[in-house]
Amino acid sequence: MTQSPEAVAGDFTLPELEDVRREAAKVDTHAVLALPESEEPAWSREAMALALWEDRSISTEELKAAAEARCAARTPRLHTFVPLYTTNYCDSECKMCSMRKGNLRLDRKFSGRKEITAQLEILYHHEGVRGVGFLTGEYEDKHTRLSSAFRIGWAIRTALDMGYERVYFNIGSMEPDEIDVLGEWIGHEEPVTMCVFQESYDKETYGRFMGQTSAQVPKANFDRRVVSFDRWLDAGFRYVNPGVLVGLHDDLSAEIVSLVSHGAHLRARGAVVDLSVPRMRPAMTSRDTTRVNDDDYLRMMSAVAFTCPEQRLVLTTREPQEFQDVAMGLAGVISPGSPDVAPYRPDSRARNDEASSQFLVADLRRPRHILSRIEAGGRPVEHFVDPSSSAPTAG
Amino acid sequence: MTQSPEAVAGDFTLPELEDVRREAAKVDTHAVLALPESEEPAWSREAMALALWEDRSISTEELKAAAEARCAARTPRLHTFVPLYTTNYCDSECKMCSMRKGNLRLDRKFSGRKEITAQLEILYHHEGVRGVGFLTGEYEDKHTRLSSAFRIGWAIRTALDMGYERVYFNIGSMEPDEIDVLGEWIGHEEPVTMCVFQESYDKETYGRFMGQTSAQVPKANFDRRVVSFDRWLDAGFRYVNPGVLVGLHDDLSAEIVSLVSHGAHLRARGAVVDLSVPRMRPAMTSRDTTRVNDDDYLRMMSAVAFTCPEQRLVLTTREPQEFQDVAMGLAGVISPGSPDVAPYRPDSRARNDEASSQFLVADLRRPRHILSRIEAGGRPVEHFVDPSSSAPTAG
Repeated sequence: MTQSPEAVAGDFTLPELEDVRREAAKVDTHAVLALPESEEPAWSREAMALALWEDRSISTEELKAAAEARCAARTPRLHTFVPLYTTNYCDSECKMCSMRKGNLRLDRKFSGRKEITAQLEILYHHEGVRGVGFLTGEYEDKHTRLSSAFRIGWAIRTALDMGYERVYFNIGSMEPDEIDVLGEWIGHEEPVTMCVFQESYDKETYGRFMGQTSAQVPKANFDRRVVSFDRWLDAGFRYVNPGVLVGLHDDLSAEIVSLVSHGAHLRARGAVVDLSVPRMRPAMTSRDTTRVNDDDYLRMMSAVAFTCPEQRLVLTTREPQEFQDVAMGLAGVISPGSPDVAPYRPDSRARNDEASSQFLVADLRRPRHILSRIEAGGRPVEHFVDPSSSAPTAG
Repeated sequence: MTQSPEAVAGDFTLPELEDVRREAAKVDTHAVLALPESEEPAWSREAMALALWEDRSISTEELKAAAEARCAARTPRLHTFVPLYTTNYCDSECKMCSMRKGNLRLDRKFSGRKEITAQLEILYHHEGVRGVGFLTGEYEDKHTRLSSAFRIGWAIRTALDMGYERVYFNIGSMEPDEIDVLGEWIGHEEPVTMCVFQESYDKETYGRFMGQTSAQVPKANFDRRVVSFDRWLDAGFRYVNPGVLVGLHDDLSAEIVSLVSHGAHLRARGAVVDLSVPRMRPAMTSRDTTRVNDDDYLRMMSAVAFTCPEQRLVLTTREPQEFQDVAMGLAGVISPGSPDVAPYRPDSRARNDEASSQFLVADLRRPRHILSRIEAGGRPVEHFVDPSSSAPTAG
């Protein structure tokens, strides 16, 4: 039931939902839940996740407790990074996103050398974080994609040289020549994670939100996007972070199956996998969509966390503090911050202006406050050095 | 007759050819030629240049000798830089240029961190040059223009940190925010020269070759291009290099007047000015044009050099060795190299493939050979350290 090496030598291919459903029908969910934490069940992960998600004889609370117990073995239990949007220019037209090219109301910004460096200094010295994630839009023409990869490669190198211990980047799909241009700034073993959230693994939903490739919309290319991690691993890198934008596609069962299958494929290729399942947030969107309620969302996170215990779920300040507290035991990464461009300030909370942000977060507390409160609650957070408990720094 | 400070406080405006022609009619050309070398004549430079260019009672040889004598006071007499094309992607559609976007036969290339660094190492250690010029295409959308400015800013910083003593960059017109992104990599006093050749100062000719702004062709914007130096000086920088592509516009008198006027304006603003007057070279062009013969070309160079003695004329390997030898006394900069992308090799001459070059040069001798031959002829070349006469280096 686990994938054989042959099966994963190639690129990721979407699972057939009906095949997974047939396997899931045979899964003894209660036996699975009772398995020792260190034991990998005999079923495929996607079948297990589907069975656990759909078997409502198991309460969400019970499933969540089992998932938390299974994740508790991980060390460190939690780590952190803060997102840093380096621009909000974008050539895509995603209907749920304020950064879409056609949004003429957005105030476009671009960070150069000084602003990126200054933001990293602020995050390091004033927020105490040692993890950062760089973001951009996605661009259509090859020269622009290469130039963007160059700038973000430089930003990653700058962060690592400054003492950051973990770096994420989220700059859209990547082709091999673009990976080369970014990759030559880093070593294969450095902790640099490619984030390319598929948003939805359902091609019809994907096309509805992301648009048609024929219209020169870079993110409309589903196939290029979904194999970006395979290209990253081909190039010798290890850290990956797929994701689903929860609320985009109605059929959560299908999304869970695809995401878990994608994670399993990448793991079988030797990757270190984080998983993102952000819920939609308010933005200057041209299309609204159904929201997923807290119980379903927690159940989804629990099913994924239980079946992929070594894969860290990323929890962000898209969610309000109250929900973070409830979900924290399922998370492997806590990522506080703002999706505005270069929004951090030495002495105050981050800016999150509707006029220049990708969306509005639910929780604008400073990263240092969020992280120190989590630590005060008994969960140490890796890549965080509480500035209030350390000696004053030059910055 | 010299421009008053008030006249140059604003942006450069094109001179009225008829006004200059009226003034030129009054210039006593023979008296001008007889002036002591250190003395600035009373006429405006553009009127003098026009009068000297048009008065065929003065032979080209005589004018050239006077110009050479006038330039001989400069120290150093010559300096050098080698062009380094970092990409041949371009969004413009200039009819005389192989890099034009519509040229689907061109093999597009892009240099990242490693290739740029390696090319700089080769030029430094194997060609012995301490001057380099970075080139790109010009791009349409703001994010791409900013990203390109970022990469070239990084390249300039890298060259200066490596020990290069003089850097040129030629990346199209620049707006203030783009200058900010490039400029924050360098100090105001560092020897970094903006090159934005107007190609032709005649708007009709310009539009015929560079296209229409309405067609989303970045270089089609004559007005943005012509004030780029003013924006550079506004930002606190000093080194500028305007130019005319000789052969584009039929009326050389008009081009001489405009170029000399532009140089005078920039000088009055406190700039250090180099002037480029390259002749057209064969390329994958969609439109051919008349060539300017050697005598006219030397006469044009002489008229400009005589009237602008502190402004260095840039001589390149677009011209064959024989012509370089004839024109060298008029030049202030000798720039050998290839307009292919990342073309330099440690142990052989540069690549200049029609399939990936902006054009084909006439002289592909290695820079070290060209420059050491010039020095052997009695003209020291600043920013050149002959590798054959220095201790072996690690590179």
